Amino acid sequence: MKLVPLGDRVVLKQCVAEETTKSGIVIPGQSKEKPQQAEVIAVGPGGMVNGKEVEMHVTTGQQVIYSKYAGTNVEIDDEEYIIVKQDDILAICE
Amino acid sequence: MKLVPLGDRVVLKQCVAEETTKSGIVIPGQSKEKPQQAEVIAVGPGGMVNGKEVEMHVTTGQQVIYSKYAGTNVEIDDEEYIIVKQDDILAICE
Amino acid sequence: MKLVPLGDRVVLKQCVAEETTKSGIVIPGQSKEKPQQAEVIAVGPGGMVNGKEVEMHVTTGQQVIYSKYAGTNVEIDDEEYIIVKQDDILAICE
Amino acid sequence: MKLVPLGDRVVLKQCVAEETTKSGIVIPGQSKEKPQQAEVIAVGPGGMVNGKEVEMHVTTGQQVIYSKYAGTNVEIDDEEYIIVKQDDILAICE
Amino acid sequence: MKLVPLGDRVVLKQCVAEETTKSGIVIPGQSKEKPQQAEVIAVGPGGMVNGKEVEMHVTTGQQVIYSKYAGTNVEIDDEEYIIVKQDDILAICE
Amino acid sequence: MKLVPLGDRVVLKQCVAEETTKSGIVIPGQSKEKPQQAEVIAVGPGGMVNGKEVEMHVTTGQQVIYSKYAGTNVEIDDEEYIIVKQDDILAICE
Amino acid sequence: MKLVPLGDRVVLKQCVAEETTKSGIVIPGQSKEKPQQAEVIAVGPGGMVNGKEVEMHVTTGQQVIYSKYAGTNVEIDDEEYIIVKQDDILAICE
Repeated sequence: MKLVPLGDRVVLKQCVAEETTKSGIVIPGQSKEKPQQAEVIAVGPGGMVNGKEVEMHVTTGQQVIYSKYAGTNVEIDDEEYIIVKQDDILAICE
Repeated sequence: MKLVPLGDRVVLKQCVAEETTKSGIVIPGQSKEKPQQAEVIAVGPGGMVNGKEVEMHVTTGQQVIYSKYAGTNVEIDDEEYIIVKQDDILAICE
Repeated sequence: MKLVPLGDRVVLKQCVAEETTKSGIVIPGQSKEKPQQAEVIAVGPGGMVNGKEVEMHVTTGQQVIYSKYAGTNVEIDDEEYIIVKQDDILAICE
Repeated sequence: MKLVPLGDRVVLKQCVAEETTKSGIVIPGQSKEKPQQAEVIAVGPGGMVNGKEVEMHVTTGQQVIYSKYAGTNVEIDDEEYIIVKQDDILAICE
Repeated sequence: MKLVPLGDRVVLKQCVAEETTKSGIVIPGQSKEKPQQAEVIAVGPGGMVNGKEVEMHVTTGQQVIYSKYAGTNVEIDDEEYIIVKQDDILAICE
Repeated sequence: MKLVPLGDRVVLKQCVAEETTKSGIVIPGQSKEKPQQAEVIAVGPGGMVNGKEVEMHVTTGQQVIYSKYAGTNVEIDDEEYIIVKQDDILAICE
Repeated sequence: MKLVPLGDRVVLKQCVAEETTKSGIVIPGQSKEKPQQAEVIAVGPGGMVNGKEVEMHVTTGQQVIYSKYAGTNVEIDDEEYIIVKQDDILAICE
């Protein structure tokens, strides 16, 4: 199943990398504080949103920093996504 | 009785599927956390809403993800519906 | 006495039907949870409301679903009415 | 002393009628719950209010229903008035 | 020292009259509940305020009723003034 | 180091005068309630601020009254300044 | 990795200088109250932000004072940055 965001919404997927301590113990990503970095999975069409013309500036595949507490977590086919408004994306990581 | 939404409102019906555990016990959908996925039952005409022109982008029959806590629950003829504003619909599931 | 609503306001009257249990006991409508369905009694002229042009889309006699907690209860000649803004009417029942 | 309201403000005076019980005891209006019905005493000129053009739709002498908790109580020459914005007047009683 | 208000601000001075009880005891105005009546001391130029054109409708010397809790108390040369926005002035007393 | 305010911001410096009691005891200004009078140290260029054109009406060197609780205290080179928006300046003292 | 801010956002890096007491003890910057002075690391393109045209007035390398509690802390490659909206930058230090 594919999520097609509406308006200025963007579907993100958090980058949860495993982490290996110096002594070799693997700490799964989940146990760490939720990172604010995520990958753009799908981008809404923009256009008229709440009476204001919005142009989309992010593209699928980009790594972005998004605002803490923003967005809605959605679980689809056992994968967790975050749907945010483009305005909650603070910066692109290059 | 049929619900005809006004303005940018959309009538949704939650998809509540029964779930069978591995050992064969059926857990009725109600006992699970309320899903945010729903089917579009009726779509308002859009137009001038709160001084802003709104165009409708969802269609009857689509599966959508809507914002948690959004909308009003309405019981009509023993069926429960949720009436949300289109802006509370985050994405369409394809 | 007649209520003539101003601007985008609409006068509603709740539909409070008696209910007879299977064993024949009549439960007066009042004891049930307040329904959100009401009949449109009078409709304001619309026009410029709070700096925005509002067109009225409901008509006297229609059954409507209105937003919980919205509006002001008014008692006139021992009849109770609810005065809501048209935007608090979610859908028309047909 | 006369109150001349500014902008979209309206000066109201609550209708406090005495009430006689069946047994003939007079209950002064004050002891009852504050009614929301009032008489229009003076009407502001309307015009540009908070950047929006406001046209006045009520007239001195009309009986109106106004929004609970709205407005400011003012005591002038031992008479109590309520000054509300026109938008807090819900309906005219005819 | 003179206060010259900016934008749509108005400098007011509360009218605090002494009060003599029937038995001749003078109750200084201060001990009574703060009245909402005040004299206009200085009026700002109006003009563009917060992106909206404001025209001033009060004049120095007028007695006005202003909104409870509005404005900022300022003590200049041992005199206390209240600086309010014109929109917090409800009515002129004539 | 010099503070150059952005947009409609204004840099203020509180006037903290020592005070001598009748009996000759000097009460340093700091121990009194924070005064709302300050000197204008630097004025932003105005222009487009939050989508609204702002014209600056205060000048360096003026004594002004500013809104209690407004602004941000900043310590630069052991001097304390307050940076406020021009809209938080209520009046100029002449 | 490089942070490219979107819209009217600006990436800042706090100036955390070590401090040496008179007796020669070094107090690392971290232990002091968080300063509000920071260096501009990257500046968004401005343009249409929330329906309003925003022009950027800060440049990479400038020292700025930003609003307390504003912005989002982001840790990239073990360096901590603050991403603020340009409107949260109060003044440039020259």
